[in-house]
Amino acid sequence: MSQYSAPVSTDAAYAAHLDARDPLAPFRDRFVIAYPDLVYLDGNSLGRLPAATLALADDLARRQWGDHLIRGWNDGWFDAPERIGAKIARLLGARPDEVIVADSTSVNLFKLVVAALRARDGRPRVLTDDLNFPSDIYVLRGALDLLDKGHRLDIVPSPDGVHGPEAALRAALDERTALLTLSHTAFKSGYVYDLAGLTAAAHAAGVLTLWDLSHSVGAIPVDVGAAGVDLAIGCTYKYLNGGPGAPAFLYIRRDLQDTLRNPIAGWMGQKSLFDFGLDYEPAAGLRRFLTGTPPIVSLSLVEPGVDLLLEAGMERVRAKSEAQSAYLIGLWEALLEPLGFTLNSPRAARRRGSHVSLGHAEGLRIDLALIDKMKVLPDFRAPDTIRLGIAPLYTTYRDIHAAVLALRTIVAERLYEQYSSEAPVVT
Amino acid sequence: MSQYSAPVSTDAAYAAHLDARDPLAPFRDRFVIAYPDLVYLDGNSLGRLPAATLALADDLARRQWGDHLIRGWNDGWFDAPERIGAKIARLLGARPDEVIVADSTSVNLFKLVVAALRARDGRPRVLTDDLNFPSDIYVLRGALDLLDKGHRLDIVPSPDGVHGPEAALRAALDERTALLTLSHTAFKSGYVYDLAGLTAAAHAAGVLTLWDLSHSVGAIPVDVGAAGVDLAIGCTYKYLNGGPGAPAFLYIRRDLQDTLRNPIAGWMGQKSLFDFGLDYEPAAGLRRFLTGTPPIVSLSLVEPGVDLLLEAGMERVRAKSEAQSAYLIGLWEALLEPLGFTLNSPRAARRRGSHVSLGHAEGLRIDLALIDKMKVLPDFRAPDTIRLGIAPLYTTYRDIHAAVLALRTIVAERLYEQYSSEAPVVT
Repeated sequence: MSQYSAPVSTDAAYAAHLDARDPLAPFRDRFVIAYPDLVYLDGNSLGRLPAATLALADDLARRQWGDHLIRGWNDGWFDAPERIGAKIARLLGARPDEVIVADSTSVNLFKLVVAALRARDGRPRVLTDDLNFPSDIYVLRGALDLLDKGHRLDIVPSPDGVHGPEAALRAALDERTALLTLSHTAFKSGYVYDLAGLTAAAHAAGVLTLWDLSHSVGAIPVDVGAAGVDLAIGCTYKYLNGGPGAPAFLYIRRDLQDTLRNPIAGWMGQKSLFDFGLDYEPAAGLRRFLTGTPPIVSLSLVEPGVDLLLEAGMERVRAKSEAQSAYLIGLWEALLEPLGFTLNSPRAARRRGSHVSLGHAEGLRIDLALIDKMKVLPDFRAPDTIRLGIAPLYTTYRDIHAAVLALRTIVAERLYEQYSSEAPVVT
Repeated sequence: MSQYSAPVSTDAAYAAHLDARDPLAPFRDRFVIAYPDLVYLDGNSLGRLPAATLALADDLARRQWGDHLIRGWNDGWFDAPERIGAKIARLLGARPDEVIVADSTSVNLFKLVVAALRARDGRPRVLTDDLNFPSDIYVLRGALDLLDKGHRLDIVPSPDGVHGPEAALRAALDERTALLTLSHTAFKSGYVYDLAGLTAAAHAAGVLTLWDLSHSVGAIPVDVGAAGVDLAIGCTYKYLNGGPGAPAFLYIRRDLQDTLRNPIAGWMGQKSLFDFGLDYEPAAGLRRFLTGTPPIVSLSLVEPGVDLLLEAGMERVRAKSEAQSAYLIGLWEALLEPLGFTLNSPRAARRRGSHVSLGHAEGLRIDLALIDKMKVLPDFRAPDTIRLGIAPLYTTYRDIHAAVLALRTIVAERLYEQYSSEAPVVT
């Protein structure tokens, strides 16, 4: 028994009891759930469809595009990046004019990394760690290579693949470092970094910070304002329930906005875009970090999911997430650890995001059996990790209980043996 | 009377006669047209909603996202950039593996310009002209500034604001020029460049070509294969009817694909993205020019509009477009030129895209009156140009006739006088 988790009952009735007293339980009815017996624990990868979003999809196509046609730009499309950004800002402790929705997380990262390094000319080092999302590291490598100014990317290793190397990161901050960039919640282990502490340590060394909030936004209360974060990015299709590949957001602290240049200077970031002049003059504030015309349908569909989180309140969302992940870890300890499952997420609740990763030597085949035989949808991250994502707006305690029992059955009865370890594209 | 246009009847009955014998007329019924008396002549800015797209929007939200959830990635989302790209390729004379859908036109331009200039190291000059879309020029300026290798952007002036300065462009191509980049159809005048001739001239000087096909694709038969074009980009929300801000496409000639590097290196362009390794290894072929997760809803909605064009055939689309723009110019000559309207598009049909621009000293106020009083939707481009876009899949001869009569009435009866010349955001 860990010092962090209380013993839990493994009875299904206990799960039902927890659901019955869950104050957020009614939010599940705000989502389209066609198959109630499907246990969906992949909201950390693709959030569910809010009912309001389904209605909005029809309105967007039929009325806004089909009927209003080009006039849609004056009726809400043009302002959508800022309007939805201002709502996301409330989930992040940012001011309304500090967040805007645009492009993909990777494109936004590119813009901000390049902008930050040009603003910290003379400091050749970028600091990250090996728990950062690999795509972020690809973008960093590509940006440094393109800048061709002798920057060096230092990737600090995690001590155990689960916990962030925070002490080593702090020790590495120096006057040669331009930028510290990390995933606030690690995509594989769910480890949550000390946002305020690391940001303060970076600032003490004159280092800018850029946080990827993709696995935090909508799952954990974040306060970029209190932490004084310089730059952030994040995606909207996980806990924000914005839809597959929905456009991402970017945050720039207000006092930095007019000092940074968008390296991908397109007309949506131009001061007077309908003058069609040939010289680029950046818009004031965050709008200069827009580039091309945004994909309005995917962009607009982000809004209802954000509204649901604002209505529920991030404190309640986090309280349920902590309770549910603790419950899951309790069940793991009672039922799965004896079968060879390892806990690949932090035990300490304050260091844990909203997904729990379990490792197993047969992880991939177990994952395939879960999906195929058990109507449980988790996801899998190579080489051995099954991620169980908790989205408190719709995940039930019964979901978690059912998933753990399914995992136990698959291993106890060796049901995974009929599956190949040839990975599908996405799970 | 111009040498290029035949006299046309100004009778409404003649417009009805032309519609009655139009072989593409049945395609209008494949679009959602809630207000049949609205004359929509802005398909060059935002195409109409295909009926199949409306049905697909519901399927995407309800079934693909809501029900299939994360499994949607294996059921068509992952391959959508290539699948839809291969269809667009057929409209462009490209091979199926030479076009992919990704990001916005501006972001794609950035990627390709940077890739091209890195491949033509030692040539410091980029050549374009002042009819190019201003956003493209902003992106070029930003990319050259970022590269910081002493590149210079030369913007050749048009002789008259209508026709492209083709002779001057040819004369300017030299061994110091890395890249020639132009809009194939000019956004304001509709001038169509000699794609094959300019590309050949560029190649003779060792210069790469990058064409913006935004106002050509779906409007004019383009043959990038026959012309040997190196690189191209374009948008999908105009004549492709892909929806507001729908993701753009990019084209790279097959033999160049593996020699070019995507400067915004994200996981969707990684060879084995689900290995989650920390080193970026580009995917083979065009997929390396993907970056982040694409906005699946907006992306998927591009497909039905492309299918309609493939079904209609670009030769028939172009034949109708030429006939309709000639009809419009004939009506202008008979009814509008005497009222002070100028023709700001080429007279020669082979040099004219699918929109016709008319100038007038009171252009903006006339435009506002058209929208407000006459149920005619064109668009306006500063300082004085009203663009009348012809989308042969749904534009009728009666639409064109009604628009010209409305323009005549507005000026003849001075109905524009009650409107302010304060421009709205988008028209």
